[in-house]
Amino acid sequence: MPGAGTDRTRPALSGGPVVILVEPQLGENIGMTARAMANFGLSEMRLVRPRGNWLHQKTRAAAAGAEYVLDGAQVFASLAEAMADLHFVYATTARERGQGKDVVGPAEAGPAMRARVAAGEKVGILFGRERTGLENDDISLADAILTYPVNPAYASLNLAQAVLLAGYAWQAAAAAAEPLPFAKKEKWPPATREAVLSFFDYLEDQLATRGFFRPPHKRPNMSRNLRNMFHRMSMSEQDVRTIRGMIVRLVEGPREPQTKKRLKPAKKADD
Amino acid sequence: MPGAGTDRTRPALSGGPVVILVEPQLGENIGMTARAMANFGLSEMRLVRPRGNWLHQKTRAAAAGAEYVLDGAQVFASLAEAMADLHFVYATTARERGQGKDVVGPAEAGPAMRARVAAGEKVGILFGRERTGLENDDISLADAILTYPVNPAYASLNLAQAVLLAGYAWQAAAAAAEPLPFAKKEKWPPATREAVLSFFDYLEDQLATRGFFRPPHKRPNMSRNLRNMFHRMSMSEQDVRTIRGMIVRLVEGPREPQTKKRLKPAKKADD
Repeated sequence: MPGAGTDRTRPALSGGPVVILVEPQLGENIGMTARAMANFGLSEMRLVRPRGNWLHQKTRAAAAGAEYVLDGAQVFASLAEAMADLHFVYATTARERGQGKDVVGPAEAGPAMRARVAAGEKVGILFGRERTGLENDDISLADAILTYPVNPAYASLNLAQAVLLAGYAWQAAAAAAEPLPFAKKEKWPPATREAVLSFFDYLEDQLATRGFFRPPHKRPNMSRNLRNMFHRMSMSEQDVRTIRGMIVRLVEGPREPQTKKRLKPAKKADD
Repeated sequence: MPGAGTDRTRPALSGGPVVILVEPQLGENIGMTARAMANFGLSEMRLVRPRGNWLHQKTRAAAAGAEYVLDGAQVFASLAEAMADLHFVYATTARERGQGKDVVGPAEAGPAMRARVAAGEKVGILFGRERTGLENDDISLADAILTYPVNPAYASLNLAQAVLLAGYAWQAAAAAAEPLPFAKKEKWPPATREAVLSFFDYLEDQLATRGFFRPPHKRPNMSRNLRNMFHRMSMSEQDVRTIRGMIVRLVEGPREPQTKKRLKPAKKADD
């Protein structure tokens, strides 16, 4: 199931780093990895010596609609073959290996991968076995180490989650330049200052009539506080109409079927 | 299983945002979420109306060693109660909701959460139901929207993955947490969510009595709009008192003469 927020009319992202799983043991993990890749627009999966018949029903179910990643996956007999056409390869690991390689986090790796891909290079990321991770021999084939700022007391990520964070790093590096999918549309055009000030005049008149500003010499300061609070709303034209309508209703009391009693003040609550 | 890279001699990270799951349906997802939280040092989990008996063997198995998160989880009957003591709340969603809230990505939310927590605020993040996410009414209770730069053609993250990314955002921002020397003092402490919700209840009662919500079936939507506007004020405790006092005055009309008389001689120091 593509799920909430998926928009089939928009083109799938692609072109990201190749994800290489070394000796994955469970089809479900491969499926979940495919889904995590699709979430951040990674599409090229390679498997090194996956265990037995890996592409079964559970694998597809776990991919939850990202089956195109599974169907495009390539299988290799050795890690060296799986990396043959790549220009730069990261190895993911949660612990120090003492191999003298550069160690980077996702925030650094994202832009670095983008820069390489933009320059025409092909980048890959290695992920190890579910229980034991990458062996030192696997890591020795990589150019750099990618690790995550995890809780040192609880460092174990599952395979799909490790891939998800790499995908996020890749995508976030692009998103830094591009807006989020809908951020800009969430805000309506702001009200004119004229509409806002006219609302303030109306509100403060009503409040003054009802003795809100007390003692009277504090009125300027109290007005300023109120205005500042409403300014923080960043009101749109519609917001000003809504709030003004709310104040009118509070002041005038319930609407009448006819308009003649409309101006009756709502004094009774206290009497 | 703690797994590779875990070092039991190092202290667990804690103090991060509260993770609130709204109506989670499957124990396994709650367990995987606990694990994702532990990975990035989040420890406080709250569940709003979880389905049936949620804490079973599969839940614990999925937590893979992060059972302390499950054992510390609190269950609430309503989202409002689950948020009562929080000062700032993000709602996660993959699609536009048109509620006029700020929309941020993880790279922005991480440092923002760090700054709030450093200033003594309590921050929460809402995550919706596995299939349908958060409802608009849930989102209307939040201050801002957190969304991820996902592939628009494949936007669906599973629950634990959505939580994992939020935890990563929190942890990745650790280095960026140094507060400016005086920025914090410019802001008054924010109101608790309880004070804000109590104000909404009062205001909406008054408006309902006066026929503001018309036609009546539009009330939920109109309430949501109002709440969203007031949330944008980022009200302090004092702000809530001020606005509430303003509404009381508008509703009840001028204070009684009795009160006025007492004020008059107050200048003369005795009587």
